[in-house]
Amino acid sequence: MNKNWPYTSPGIPDQLFKRADGIPMTKQDVRAVVLSRICPFPGAVIYDIGAGTGSVSVECALMGCQRVYAVEKKVEAIESLRENIDLFETPKVIIVPGSAPGALEDLPLADRIFIGGSGGAIKQVLEEVYNKLKPGGRLVASSITMDTGPEVIKFMEKHDFKDIDITSVNIAKANSRGRVYMWHSHNPVQVICAQRRETN
Amino acid sequence: MNKNWPYTSPGIPDQLFKRADGIPMTKQDVRAVVLSRICPFPGAVIYDIGAGTGSVSVECALMGCQRVYAVEKKVEAIESLRENIDLFETPKVIIVPGSAPGALEDLPLADRIFIGGSGGAIKQVLEEVYNKLKPGGRLVASSITMDTGPEVIKFMEKHDFKDIDITSVNIAKANSRGRVYMWHSHNPVQVICAQRRETN
Amino acid sequence: MNKNWPYTSPGIPDQLFKRADGIPMTKQDVRAVVLSRICPFPGAVIYDIGAGTGSVSVECALMGCQRVYAVEKKVEAIESLRENIDLFETPKVIIVPGSAPGALEDLPLADRIFIGGSGGAIKQVLEEVYNKLKPGGRLVASSITMDTGPEVIKFMEKHDFKDIDITSVNIAKANSRGRVYMWHSHNPVQVICAQRRETN
Amino acid sequence: MNKNWPYTSPGIPDQLFKRADGIPMTKQDVRAVVLSRICPFPGAVIYDIGAGTGSVSVECALMGCQRVYAVEKKVEAIESLRENIDLFETPKVIIVPGSAPGALEDLPLADRIFIGGSGGAIKQVLEEVYNKLKPGGRLVASSITMDTGPEVIKFMEKHDFKDIDITSVNIAKANSRGRVYMWHSHNPVQVICAQRRETN
Repeated sequence: MNKNWPYTSPGIPDQLFKRADGIPMTKQDVRAVVLSRICPFPGAVIYDIGAGTGSVSVECALMGCQRVYAVEKKVEAIESLRENIDLFETPKVIIVPGSAPGALEDLPLADRIFIGGSGGAIKQVLEEVYNKLKPGGRLVASSITMDTGPEVIKFMEKHDFKDIDITSVNIAKANSRGRVYMWHSHNPVQVICAQRRETN
Repeated sequence: MNKNWPYTSPGIPDQLFKRADGIPMTKQDVRAVVLSRICPFPGAVIYDIGAGTGSVSVECALMGCQRVYAVEKKVEAIESLRENIDLFETPKVIIVPGSAPGALEDLPLADRIFIGGSGGAIKQVLEEVYNKLKPGGRLVASSITMDTGPEVIKFMEKHDFKDIDITSVNIAKANSRGRVYMWHSHNPVQVICAQRRETN
Repeated sequence: MNKNWPYTSPGIPDQLFKRADGIPMTKQDVRAVVLSRICPFPGAVIYDIGAGTGSVSVECALMGCQRVYAVEKKVEAIESLRENIDLFETPKVIIVPGSAPGALEDLPLADRIFIGGSGGAIKQVLEEVYNKLKPGGRLVASSITMDTGPEVIKFMEKHDFKDIDITSVNIAKANSRGRVYMWHSHNPVQVICAQRRETN
Repeated sequence: MNKNWPYTSPGIPDQLFKRADGIPMTKQDVRAVVLSRICPFPGAVIYDIGAGTGSVSVECALMGCQRVYAVEKKVEAIESLRENIDLFETPKVIIVPGSAPGALEDLPLADRIFIGGSGGAIKQVLEEVYNKLKPGGRLVASSITMDTGPEVIKFMEKHDFKDIDITSVNIAKANSRGRVYMWHSHNPVQVICAQRRETN
C-alpha cells in the first residue's frame, strides 16, 4: 500500500498530485471513468500519450500494470510527472520524453493506449500510435473539444476496432460557501474507447 | 483474476451483472465514482445498505476488502445479489437480509458504509447506521432525488464528520443509430461522502 | 393574445401541443433557447426545416414574424402541424410539404432558417438551404447527435458566416414521486447558430 | 423595437447588458427558461427580487408587462440596473431600493414574483413576498445552491401552490480555441415555479 493513497480503488483526489501551473490533468472522477475503460491488468503494457502530470499513468501503475510509458514532450510537465512517480512510488511508470511516432519506436507493443491530450492533432496521433497497439488491445481517448470525439470514432470505424463506447462525463461539485453549498461545474469531458480486433 | 472481470480497475459494465426486473443498480460510471469515495482497503469491513443487485458490494470485494455486508430486504434483489456473488466469485460478500437497524445488530463495526438506496427514508437510515461506523471511517451516499442530498449533509454537519464532498455525476452515452451517434442521458446522481472524525 | 398561450414569452409547455406518436418535438426549454438564437422580428420570413409537430414554427408566429414556412415531408407530422396551427391560431405558419431543395424553390428568401431535423443528412440540407438565406440572416440548427454539430460548424466556417455560437443544453426535471422529487434527465441538445455576412 | 435588441424573443446575449463587477446576472439561456416560467402578459405586475443587473426585469418589460418592480439593496447593482433600464429604454422597470418586506409594503400586488437571489435567506424572503402575490399568480425562483431548491419546494407545498415545476439547467458553450472548439460549462441553475391557487 502506498502511503499517499493506501486504498485499492482508483480516483485519487486531484490535490494529492503535484501539478505545475498550466499542465493539464485528468481530474478525479473523469480519471475513475477513464481507468474503467482502460481495464488495466497485471502484465499489461500501457502507453499514456500526452501524460501531463501523470495522474493516469500513476493510477495504472498502482492498479498493477507491468509497465506504463508516459509519453510527454513538455519539459514542465515532465518535471511534474517525475515528482508524482516519486510521490506515489510507482517506478513502473517510465517517462518517454518527446512525441509520437519517434518516441514510441523502440517501445514494446501496447495492450492499452490512452490519449489524454493530442494538442489539436488527434488524427496524426491516432495514425502514429495505431501500429503499436496489440490485436485485442484497447484504445481510450478523452476529449475536451467538440472535434476530437468524432475524429476518434471515424478512425476506429475505418480500422479494425469493435465495441466503440462513447461517454460524456459532466461533473459538478457543491462547495461550502457560508451556510450554503454552491454548485460549480467542471467542463464536460468525452471518453471514447474501443477494442482492436484479435487477429485470426 | 476473475474470469468475468479479469481487470484490476472497478467500473464493471452494467450488462455483466445479473439483474432482476425493477431492481435498481448503481451504474458503471457512477459506481466508479462511488468506489473512489468509498476508498476500499485490504482488511476493510464494508456495509452496502440497500445493496440491490450487489454491483457495489461485488466491486468492493474485488478491490480486496475483507468483508462486505450487503444489506437488502427485497427478496428478488437478494436473488440477483446471490447470482452476482457467484458470477464474480466474491464469497467475501455476505448477504444480510432485512433492514437496519435490526439486521445490523450483530455485525462488526464498519470501516465504510455506503447507502445506495434508502427507500425515501434517508434520515432514519442515517440514524440507524451511524453507531456502526468506526471513528475515522467513511460514510458514502448516492442520491437520485432532490431531497436526499441535503438530508445527508445536514446529518454529517450535526455529527462528527469532516471533509464533506458533494458531487453531481451526469453521464450521457452516444449510441450508434445508423450513420450517426445519438446522445442519451442517464439520470443525474449525487454522490456525497465524509469521514467520521477519529476519537482522541 | 392566444387563448391557449395568453403570454408574451416563448417556451410553451410541451403538453399544450398536439403530437402524433413518434414525431419529434423541440422541447420547451431547448425551444426557448432556440428562439433566442433565431431572434424573430416583425416582418421576418422564417424557414423551419424538418418542422415536426411545428412547435418552433408556432412560437415564431406568436413572436410576430411575418411568415413561417414549416417544411416537412412526413405525412403524420404534417397532420400534427396542421392541428397545432389551428390550436394556437397561427395562420402565418404555411405548411410546405416535401423536402429541400425542391420544396423551397418558390419561397421568398429567408431572414432566418432553423434546421431542427435533418434525418442524418445535414450536409445535404445545409447545401440546399444556403442560397435561400438572405445576407445578414441567421442560420440556427439543433442537434441530438455527435456528428451534426461539427458538420454545421464546418459549413459555417467554409461559407460567409460570422459569430458562430455553440451551446449544449442539458435539462433535468425533478418529478414528484411520493414524498420525494426524483431527477429525470432529458437528452442533451446542441444549438448552433451564426449570422450570414452582409454583402457590401 | 428597441435599438439594442430589435427582436421579439427574450434571451438577450449577456454582453449586451452593462454589468458592474461582482454583480450577479441571470445568464442568457437560463434567463430564457426563467422567462418561460414567469409567463409575462400585458398588464402584469412583476416583482424581480434581488434584481442584480436587471436582466430579467428588462426582459419582462420588453415582453410587454405593465410594471416591473426591481427590488435590490446593493448600491452598485442599482447603478447597473439604472444603466440597463436606460440602455434598453424600459421605463416600466421601477427600481425599488432596499429589501423585502419593508421595500414591498407600498407596492401593488404582484401577478408574478421572481426570486433570482436571496442572499442565503430564502426562507425569510419567501415569507416576506408571499402576501404580495395575487391568487392565481406565479412564483418563480432560481437557485445556484443545493439548499435553496428544497426550501422553495417545501414552502410551496405548505402553502396554496399548485403545479410545482422543477428544472435543472446545465449549459455548456463550445468556444473557438485555434483550430478546435473547447467545451466550457456554466454552473448548473435550478429553476422552480408554481402557481398560487385561485381563491373561490
